[in-house]
Amino acid sequence: MTRDDARALDRTDPLARFRDRFALPEGVIYLDGNSLGPLPRAVAPALADTVQRQWGERLIRSWNEGWIDAPQRLGAQIAPLIGAAPDEVIVGDTTSTHLFKALVAALRHDPARRTIVSEAGNFPTDLHIAEGAVACVPGARLKVVAREDLAAALDEDTAVLLLTHVHYKTAERFDLAAWTARAHAAGALMLWDFSHSVGAVPIDVTAANVDLAVGCTYKYLNGGPGAPAFLYVAKRLHDALANPVSGWMGHAEPFAFQDAYRPAAGMKRWLVGTPSILAMASLEAALALWTEVDQTAVAAKSAALFVILARAGAAAGLPCDTPADADQRGSHISFRAPHAYELTQALIARGVIGDFRAPDILRLGLTPLYLSHEDVWQAGEHLRDIIAIEAWRDPAFAVRNAVT
Amino acid sequence: MTRDDARALDRTDPLARFRDRFALPEGVIYLDGNSLGPLPRAVAPALADTVQRQWGERLIRSWNEGWIDAPQRLGAQIAPLIGAAPDEVIVGDTTSTHLFKALVAALRHDPARRTIVSEAGNFPTDLHIAEGAVACVPGARLKVVAREDLAAALDEDTAVLLLTHVHYKTAERFDLAAWTARAHAAGALMLWDFSHSVGAVPIDVTAANVDLAVGCTYKYLNGGPGAPAFLYVAKRLHDALANPVSGWMGHAEPFAFQDAYRPAAGMKRWLVGTPSILAMASLEAALALWTEVDQTAVAAKSAALFVILARAGAAAGLPCDTPADADQRGSHISFRAPHAYELTQALIARGVIGDFRAPDILRLGLTPLYLSHEDVWQAGEHLRDIIAIEAWRDPAFAVRNAVT
Repeated sequence: MTRDDARALDRTDPLARFRDRFALPEGVIYLDGNSLGPLPRAVAPALADTVQRQWGERLIRSWNEGWIDAPQRLGAQIAPLIGAAPDEVIVGDTTSTHLFKALVAALRHDPARRTIVSEAGNFPTDLHIAEGAVACVPGARLKVVAREDLAAALDEDTAVLLLTHVHYKTAERFDLAAWTARAHAAGALMLWDFSHSVGAVPIDVTAANVDLAVGCTYKYLNGGPGAPAFLYVAKRLHDALANPVSGWMGHAEPFAFQDAYRPAAGMKRWLVGTPSILAMASLEAALALWTEVDQTAVAAKSAALFVILARAGAAAGLPCDTPADADQRGSHISFRAPHAYELTQALIARGVIGDFRAPDILRLGLTPLYLSHEDVWQAGEHLRDIIAIEAWRDPAFAVRNAVT
Repeated sequence: MTRDDARALDRTDPLARFRDRFALPEGVIYLDGNSLGPLPRAVAPALADTVQRQWGERLIRSWNEGWIDAPQRLGAQIAPLIGAAPDEVIVGDTTSTHLFKALVAALRHDPARRTIVSEAGNFPTDLHIAEGAVACVPGARLKVVAREDLAAALDEDTAVLLLTHVHYKTAERFDLAAWTARAHAAGALMLWDFSHSVGAVPIDVTAANVDLAVGCTYKYLNGGPGAPAFLYVAKRLHDALANPVSGWMGHAEPFAFQDAYRPAAGMKRWLVGTPSILAMASLEAALALWTEVDQTAVAAKSAALFVILARAGAAAGLPCDTPADADQRGSHISFRAPHAYELTQALIARGVIGDFRAPDILRLGLTPLYLSHEDVWQAGEHLRDIIAIEAWRDPAFAVRNAVT
């Protein structure tokens, strides 16, 4: 592929118009949107209104003028991105806190089932939080097995199967419906972590009959650093599951100020304390553009961008850990290299921002809303150039060869 | 007291200079800073830098340029406000989530002690979260008793005494050292909720030998709506207590991406997930002015403001629920009135913003950094005027008599 080939693809790209919605720095090719999405231009004016008018002028009155419903309102914005109903998703807290609440609730759902099953090498907080959840339920335990042993690990003691839809290192993607069906066949609940897939690949929790899900909003959804996470609970479980972190915002009548906790109906019971309204305002502004986005076009462009980088990596002799089949991966690509840290630094020195994942992974995010085919082609050229210079494994190489 | 008397006090007020640090709307006397502090002028430029430069331009690199240490850095800013060492406080999560972590940890500290003792009528989330915490520890229970029965409720089964330092309705303040000593005499840990006292009254956790504390930052500390809360753990307990919500940000090496959870040393282990950096930036800007604030002057002015409103309330015939002794209260004043809701609305219609707490409380916050003596005198005059008009109990009165 040549630069002209890439430009030809950009000219017919139905998503090209979204690039202007983001404030991207000059001279940077940003291949880390799978870790921290860039700044949507809509965020600064939305935050200015929230700070100056809503907080500064309306003060406490703003709680009755939109703030109090923000967790449900943002949940309804995220719902179509995962195929949920608007009243099955709520926003607030962190992914880790949502995981804790969902796992403890799942363990308490059927007292005859005491085991959380999950995958070795899952994103660490999923496993760390699962350790914490089992310590809160008598007799509960965590069974962590390799991917190939997951199916055999499901049995009559499994309370919940916890999987991350797209792997944060390799970008391998689980089949949502097939694994949900396996969990259900064993009588277990299915809890998905969509942190590395929401906004990156099509998701339909309703078609797949998913029970529970959590997800991060500061990666492909561009909500801002540390933006609040979401929790999905299938409507059929709304009355059956209880929030173990029973804070006042999840109370049926938080402003009745009663001593005894009484959970709200629907998703509201999953709230804990008061969420940051500034964080919610940024996320709400970032989510607005998704109503215009065709997810099929996102998937098609992600696949095209993948091919460009996969070829460049192959030409540079880098082994690729990401599946070649687009249906079996998310929207990033991971190469293995013995000096992956130095390689990442050398790319950053040339304005190509990806990230390093210990011990030997170079990870590059493919985000169709603001990356052009030419951007990704250019990144591939830099990758080939760096590898072609024998000295790139030298830690000082990046500094000497910086072009930006 | 006359308007001239109030103005004379303002002319010699050492805190008068702080008023310009806040963006307060014209025509409003804001007596609700105990619920949501107003906007510090330092917030908008700090947020603009965080959004445009740190997020927009530096992107993922900002994690290594100040974001990752924000929970500890803000903790060190709050520490002097409660008499703690800089490395005994951490910021992130909500007050409710911090309470949950601290209570479960306290219940697990000594397996021979299974009871949380707290006060009936405590701020609801404290009791709701305590319900959730006891459900996570086998055999644990919650004992909620009236204030006069608290001392007798402490016994050899008490794991932790949970009290809110200043009562959210009446502003009654517990003696910090005396109640901490009582808890310790019974062999229990002491957990204080400083949500309605931090920034309002002097606090010294070191002198009082406090074990654990949590607090809200969006009231007297003006951090913004839903700003992240803080957690204090005495250094002597740093290794002895474990965070039950064991998320990756509290791991000893979060970026080593290990399957097994291993808690970080010090306060870092109390982190869970990624905090909102926008929320942290707003709070950090709001906290900066506290290094200039003399807490003794705050207490003295709060007492002077209290007297002005207490006299106005007495002249209007309203019973006051707040202690007359300044050492026994926080920095708000609560009047009881059978039509307190309508009274609150009538005041708001005149630009005096306080709040109503069911069933019969008018609550007015006294915040010395941005309220003048004349403001509070004027609020008192409005209160007397409204009560003097027989019709104020009519729900339509506020609308008819609006002056702003």
